[in-house]
Amino acid sequence: MQVTDTDIKPFQDEDFLLENRTAQILYHEYAARQPIIDYHNHLPPDEIAGDKQFNTLTSVWLNGDHYKWRAMRTLGVPEHFITGDAPDSEKFQKWAEAVPFTIRNPLFHWTHLELKRYFGVTDLLNSDSADHIYNQCNDLLNTGAYNTRNLLRKMNVKTVCSTDDPIDDLRYHKQVKEEGMDIQMLPAWRPDKAILIEKEQFSYYIQSLGEAAGLSIRSLDDLMQALKNRMDFFDQNGCKLADHGLEQVYAEEYTEKEVDAIFKKRLAGESVTPPEARKFMSAILYFLGRQYAERSWVQQFHLGALRNNSSRMLRVLGPDTGFDSIGDFDQATALARFLDRLDTENKLAKTVLYNLNPRDNEIMATMIGNFNDGSVRGKMQFGSAWWFLDQKDGMEKQINALSNMGLLSCFIGMLTDSRSFMSFPRHEYFRRLLCNLIGKDVHNGELPNDTQWLGGIVADICYGNARRYFDF
Amino acid sequence: MQVTDTDIKPFQDEDFLLENRTAQILYHEYAARQPIIDYHNHLPPDEIAGDKQFNTLTSVWLNGDHYKWRAMRTLGVPEHFITGDAPDSEKFQKWAEAVPFTIRNPLFHWTHLELKRYFGVTDLLNSDSADHIYNQCNDLLNTGAYNTRNLLRKMNVKTVCSTDDPIDDLRYHKQVKEEGMDIQMLPAWRPDKAILIEKEQFSYYIQSLGEAAGLSIRSLDDLMQALKNRMDFFDQNGCKLADHGLEQVYAEEYTEKEVDAIFKKRLAGESVTPPEARKFMSAILYFLGRQYAERSWVQQFHLGALRNNSSRMLRVLGPDTGFDSIGDFDQATALARFLDRLDTENKLAKTVLYNLNPRDNEIMATMIGNFNDGSVRGKMQFGSAWWFLDQKDGMEKQINALSNMGLLSCFIGMLTDSRSFMSFPRHEYFRRLLCNLIGKDVHNGELPNDTQWLGGIVADICYGNARRYFDF
Amino acid sequence: MQVTDTDIKPFQDEDFLLENRTAQILYHEYAARQPIIDYHNHLPPDEIAGDKQFNTLTSVWLNGDHYKWRAMRTLGVPEHFITGDAPDSEKFQKWAEAVPFTIRNPLFHWTHLELKRYFGVTDLLNSDSADHIYNQCNDLLNTGAYNTRNLLRKMNVKTVCSTDDPIDDLRYHKQVKEEGMDIQMLPAWRPDKAILIEKEQFSYYIQSLGEAAGLSIRSLDDLMQALKNRMDFFDQNGCKLADHGLEQVYAEEYTEKEVDAIFKKRLAGESVTPPEARKFMSAILYFLGRQYAERSWVQQFHLGALRNNSSRMLRVLGPDTGFDSIGDFDQATALARFLDRLDTENKLAKTVLYNLNPRDNEIMATMIGNFNDGSVRGKMQFGSAWWFLDQKDGMEKQINALSNMGLLSCFIGMLTDSRSFMSFPRHEYFRRLLCNLIGKDVHNGELPNDTQWLGGIVADICYGNARRYFDF
Repeated sequence: MQVTDTDIKPFQDEDFLLENRTAQILYHEYAARQPIIDYHNHLPPDEIAGDKQFNTLTSVWLNGDHYKWRAMRTLGVPEHFITGDAPDSEKFQKWAEAVPFTIRNPLFHWTHLELKRYFGVTDLLNSDSADHIYNQCNDLLNTGAYNTRNLLRKMNVKTVCSTDDPIDDLRYHKQVKEEGMDIQMLPAWRPDKAILIEKEQFSYYIQSLGEAAGLSIRSLDDLMQALKNRMDFFDQNGCKLADHGLEQVYAEEYTEKEVDAIFKKRLAGESVTPPEARKFMSAILYFLGRQYAERSWVQQFHLGALRNNSSRMLRVLGPDTGFDSIGDFDQATALARFLDRLDTENKLAKTVLYNLNPRDNEIMATMIGNFNDGSVRGKMQFGSAWWFLDQKDGMEKQINALSNMGLLSCFIGMLTDSRSFMSFPRHEYFRRLLCNLIGKDVHNGELPNDTQWLGGIVADICYGNARRYFDF
Repeated sequence: MQVTDTDIKPFQDEDFLLENRTAQILYHEYAARQPIIDYHNHLPPDEIAGDKQFNTLTSVWLNGDHYKWRAMRTLGVPEHFITGDAPDSEKFQKWAEAVPFTIRNPLFHWTHLELKRYFGVTDLLNSDSADHIYNQCNDLLNTGAYNTRNLLRKMNVKTVCSTDDPIDDLRYHKQVKEEGMDIQMLPAWRPDKAILIEKEQFSYYIQSLGEAAGLSIRSLDDLMQALKNRMDFFDQNGCKLADHGLEQVYAEEYTEKEVDAIFKKRLAGESVTPPEARKFMSAILYFLGRQYAERSWVQQFHLGALRNNSSRMLRVLGPDTGFDSIGDFDQATALARFLDRLDTENKLAKTVLYNLNPRDNEIMATMIGNFNDGSVRGKMQFGSAWWFLDQKDGMEKQINALSNMGLLSCFIGMLTDSRSFMSFPRHEYFRRLLCNLIGKDVHNGELPNDTQWLGGIVADICYGNARRYFDF
Repeated sequence: MQVTDTDIKPFQDEDFLLENRTAQILYHEYAARQPIIDYHNHLPPDEIAGDKQFNTLTSVWLNGDHYKWRAMRTLGVPEHFITGDAPDSEKFQKWAEAVPFTIRNPLFHWTHLELKRYFGVTDLLNSDSADHIYNQCNDLLNTGAYNTRNLLRKMNVKTVCSTDDPIDDLRYHKQVKEEGMDIQMLPAWRPDKAILIEKEQFSYYIQSLGEAAGLSIRSLDDLMQALKNRMDFFDQNGCKLADHGLEQVYAEEYTEKEVDAIFKKRLAGESVTPPEARKFMSAILYFLGRQYAERSWVQQFHLGALRNNSSRMLRVLGPDTGFDSIGDFDQATALARFLDRLDTENKLAKTVLYNLNPRDNEIMATMIGNFNDGSVRGKMQFGSAWWFLDQKDGMEKQINALSNMGLLSCFIGMLTDSRSFMSFPRHEYFRRLLCNLIGKDVHNGELPNDTQWLGGIVADICYGNARRYFDF
């Protein structure tokens, strides 16, 4: 049944999320016109280099998307239809059946926005419409307009930064650069495996890292040299950013001698105690931080995830399959100490802090102010709402905390952090929310009615700030 | 003075909390029609079995209500008029005088909603109206229509689950079952006293538990056998749920031998250290969790209260008298480990997690996703806002966190958690808020305008989901 | 560009922040008419006693204002124009250029509200208007109407409580009292330096304290005697409040003998361990708390700041210069224990709790309920949103948490906590927000439409409650 009330806004029309005229002007005339810099994501470089074509909507849209998987599991859908052997068409049917039960979850908005923006689909996805939509999208996917590069171009993407392990040979980044691809694809450095000393695979990883770096790693000095070699290599291939996925930042007291002993003990196959691990991680993070500053890279920290909570499913499916959640780790004291150690020696790189627990928003929004020292506009950044927070409520809270406790005008804005070529409408989503918040303030007399001035700030947050910050 | 503005909604009219037409339709045509399953409360079974009649509004409404007591103490009302020897009429007068000063507290809404729904009172309660309302309600209370069962029937209550100690003989549950009472009244298992080894009365309790279980408890094995015996007994008497009130869940490493020694030490009258206590509690929780899974019970955890903060008032009035508050205990890591231990052996029962500190909402909303494995629809639940959070802001935050990070459509919805027969309009309150949130989304173009589909989801959250989940 | 939409409210008009007619009536007819009691601030007593005149807008408005400094640093303004040697006019120009980039930060609202209320400036401040506004304000500042006392009178300030060190001789407080100044200026006791035993300057401070108290401090007993002497002196000079700025409250187990040894060790020039420091601080806080109760003072606790995070800038500029942020210290358990220890001996003074991390709002809002015992109306207070939280979102969250979990009607309301004579419009800001929240509830049918009753509560929160609470 439809409520007949002229006051009701149609679902996801062109003024979706834009509650008044000012918001609409800010979005349509300023935000929407900006290209996209997606400075942190998990897109597979090979699929861009190879300009991959997808055969089915399942392969481009459901495979690898653990957000959708979690929803289906919650609804009682057997794993066979999620990550199992069911045919693509059946997997899609199960997802379509699930969609009406995802209302109020970002999946519901993303699903319909993505179908609309990439395929022009305007029907709601459900069990009835599943077949038709599946076929329609598959037909399009099998045309040249839907290979990966065109998917990016369709969204006006100018730059993407992938997430790469220090041992990666960056062959695909080299390939597209040589080729002169119109979309800028840059590598980004993610050295987690060299930091997380407690992980089972740590010693094997260190061996691989040595091989990639052309030396045999037997001491802390070797490790640092190997990392330097690889950072040089990344730098030569256009890398401008590092990223780290950690429960929390570590800034313990340590001596290099202690840390060297801990590292050697671990390489010898022994396990280390939690305090030893924290000393080691403190040392490596500090070393890396200095290196980033010397290379003028930007360092990012994604803090607070509690990962791989289901041992059973980790054994079956591996990591990043939908069994992670939000932790409640202490953040402020160690983070302040870590940044201060670097700052005090003038080795603090530009930094972006992302928290997964929204209760830490205000910690991050004020932490950046401690080290914004007038040297660079917006040097320290409170990163856009991430993962579970990448939805209306989460984004609005991040924007509001940043606004109230820092300067929204200096914000470098949105990134997808996604593994999917279909996630780019999240930039649109972010931009609409941003314009709506500002538009509401104007409407309520909390900001002056001057869309040109405010539109300039909006355009900067959508694009200009990131371009200047990363120098893309 | 009344502001004359046609735009102002009358206080608590039939569209109370329903801000638009869609919300109103969802509430009146879907939510309001559902019966009530109150799957967790603290109603006294003897008063239902005995179909107790209350003589005064004070006895049914103020006695035992520590929410009202706290408000009166804050206003400077002497204890004599709260829990002391003042006559019922004077206590009521003091409460009536307090009510106008409770604006914006849920007490103000509850007070007037309860007076309206049970007694048809539409006047505001204050010192002027006190006498009249007191007499009017007392007259009604002394008619047969206001004994406990009719109070439940008036609210369309189908099922209530009480909260019972393992040593309880469940005589009242048996009695109403034999009698064939039209309202289902089931026991629920709350073994806190067998878990909280640091409590002064622990050893005495263990002795009573042994007596109830028909054995003498001298070892950990005995304790587990006694608990099993009592769980069997509860199961035979219709129990389908367990509940636990803890500061946090414990999941330490331990051996049964260690825990046996800790338990024996405590039984011998010694105190245990905090690490010993945590090992013991970890062991018992794990044992219980396995047992629940084997019996297909649902396990609930109410986490995060800081109790009995006023030693002085604890000595005078005992526990649960209004001197508790919200704690800031770590929750995520141990909770994940606890659930994983059970899950990894396929012994994880259906689980409902309730947090008292709203800053933990997102931890809980994402924790459940770690263990929703496709086996049961909505197996893991983020429980409805509880105690201090059982108000508009708290409920909306819980619903929004669940919506954004899980699936609202699978939610088993509201419960009173109350000691009072007058608390059932809180289901109405919850339902109105739920419908309003969905209605606002439709109004804003964030959900499609289809009240039949959305109304079905609403009806499920109000009733159908809980009925299926608990198999009532 | 201006959006032409009659629905748009002009920026900061007389109904700024007041979204409906009820809110407007509550504000204009009740809130705005109340005088101001600013019961906690950092105004310099000498500048009031000396009735200081300011020569430039920079000197009265930018000097010492680390909120503005942080914003300028974030925008990349060099320190030369912030705390450096640049002329006042250039510093002002830089601030004016920054203002348009502070949108959505409270600075944007405060800036224009302060210019309007003190100087009648209605233009927006930016690089274009900078000169004109600077000259206009400077002309006014150099008239007698703009000395400090007239700045306070202009805002209808009745009472101010400064923040004073125990060693302060309170000469300015004496002077204005003798003189019979029409504005009440009272000292308030802030003994942080006698508590924070780990600080480098601790021993020197203790020596100064001994000198001020007329004795040589060599033991814990001496310290307590010295503090008593100084409290007596403060009391004789009109002090009625104490305040403490701490990361968290401490309530460890200790013996006086232990603490005496720790104190002597520290006086001997040694450093103390963190557990020793916590024992010492626990003992002093407990001692002080008892003393406050005996003197019928109000004790305030400002909890949760992480201070002096940039060592580099601390060396250059000293503390309180904009390098502090929000910490994530545990609060609930120790705070409850501390208050209980005092309460159990009937030595718990009236208490105001302020948290810097908004995630602790609900902890504080419920903590006060544990010790509101009916003896005094609103004895325990959850203090108004502070520092980073002193803005619309932060204040509304504090008011809402207090409303939902305590009694808003007993709230003692706003204070500036400011070093600036230009900050008093923050009382207006708070009052508007308060009236708007209540007005919205009336508008939505969540409160009855009775502005006289509600206006009375509003007036009490703005003035009456504080007057009675502090007995000013």
